[in-house]
Amino acid sequence: MAGKVEFWFEFASTYSYLSAMRVENEAAKRGVEVVWRPFLLGPIFAAQGWNNSPFNIYPAKGRYMWRDMERRAAALGLNFQRPEGFPQNSLLAARAATAALYEDWGKEFCRKIYQAQFVEGRDISQPDVVADCVVSAGGIDQITMHQAYSNSHKELLRANVEEAQAKGIFGAPSFTVCAELFWGDDRLEEALDWALKV
Amino acid sequence: MAGKVEFWFEFASTYSYLSAMRVENEAAKRGVEVVWRPFLLGPIFAAQGWNNSPFNIYPAKGRYMWRDMERRAAALGLNFQRPEGFPQNSLLAARAATAALYEDWGKEFCRKIYQAQFVEGRDISQPDVVADCVVSAGGIDQITMHQAYSNSHKELLRANVEEAQAKGIFGAPSFTVCAELFWGDDRLEEALDWALKV
Repeated sequence: MAGKVEFWFEFASTYSYLSAMRVENEAAKRGVEVVWRPFLLGPIFAAQGWNNSPFNIYPAKGRYMWRDMERRAAALGLNFQRPEGFPQNSLLAARAATAALYEDWGKEFCRKIYQAQFVEGRDISQPDVVADCVVSAGGIDQITMHQAYSNSHKELLRANVEEAQAKGIFGAPSFTVCAELFWGDDRLEEALDWALKV
Repeated sequence: MAGKVEFWFEFASTYSYLSAMRVENEAAKRGVEVVWRPFLLGPIFAAQGWNNSPFNIYPAKGRYMWRDMERRAAALGLNFQRPEGFPQNSLLAARAATAALYEDWGKEFCRKIYQAQFVEGRDISQPDVVADCVVSAGGIDQITMHQAYSNSHKELLRANVEEAQAKGIFGAPSFTVCAELFWGDDRLEEALDWALKV
């Protein structure tokens, strides 16, 4: 592999959905390896004094984001529908991801979670929705759901959040190449190209 | 002309600098006309409860922005240095721009203001800096500076800010094609392409 990028994503993040669906293709074109790092924006936003998504706190920004997502999804050939609730509680799905990503179907599980939320209009805070995504990705739901509720995977997710904060991450998706930080689906290509330089 | 884009810029905005330096070339490639609309972010941020730039209020976002600007400027072949004060008071320069943009050297004046601030490290709140930019762009400083202090141009700028707010603009640069809004230098190409569709 020519280089490595860490892909920091939050399941409740709309723009993370765009990146999750395309990052592997773009990385493969360049021969770059992508390490998927689920994390939570909640604690990071709380540290900035926000108790909600900035897209809800600042209505003009929110209106723009929903329209921009429609346009971007269309341009990328992705289906997209605005979920009923936003942001959804992504805690359980993120904990499940810390387990799933040790398996060869882990990245597919992450994409299934995004599709459940942003294409099928399902509520990813619900255990049965997470379990369905495990199965459709190729895993065994009873195993992964047990892991999702285990202390070890709570700690793995907590460590991811702390590492994200330590790296200066303040939004999602983000990409890191060593100490270099890139924020936003718009920076996906730039981050992958950067990995070829270092 | 195949289409028209309105380019909404704030002189104190770092990413507006990137767009100001490249929007005309990108538009010319597509045969799109660009109408330059100077405005102020201050009143728009104040309406969101901010009394400062979000890059100062949220340090992680600010640290990221300065590094991202270095990378983006380098990628675009533009010089860039972080100014001593940020954000600078852009009121006088913006009022001068509402006059200058009626002249054929108006867009060049705007670029000169950005270069003074982000390349030469000058303080664009100073009348002599604004006047120098008028002259180097090809205008007559005494005329434009008188206009910059006139009630008519104060009103022209105020009307721009009100129109920006009415269009849902919450940051700079922004681009509009009829009712369609695009935010950020990253969306420059998409906005210009959109103008070809409508």
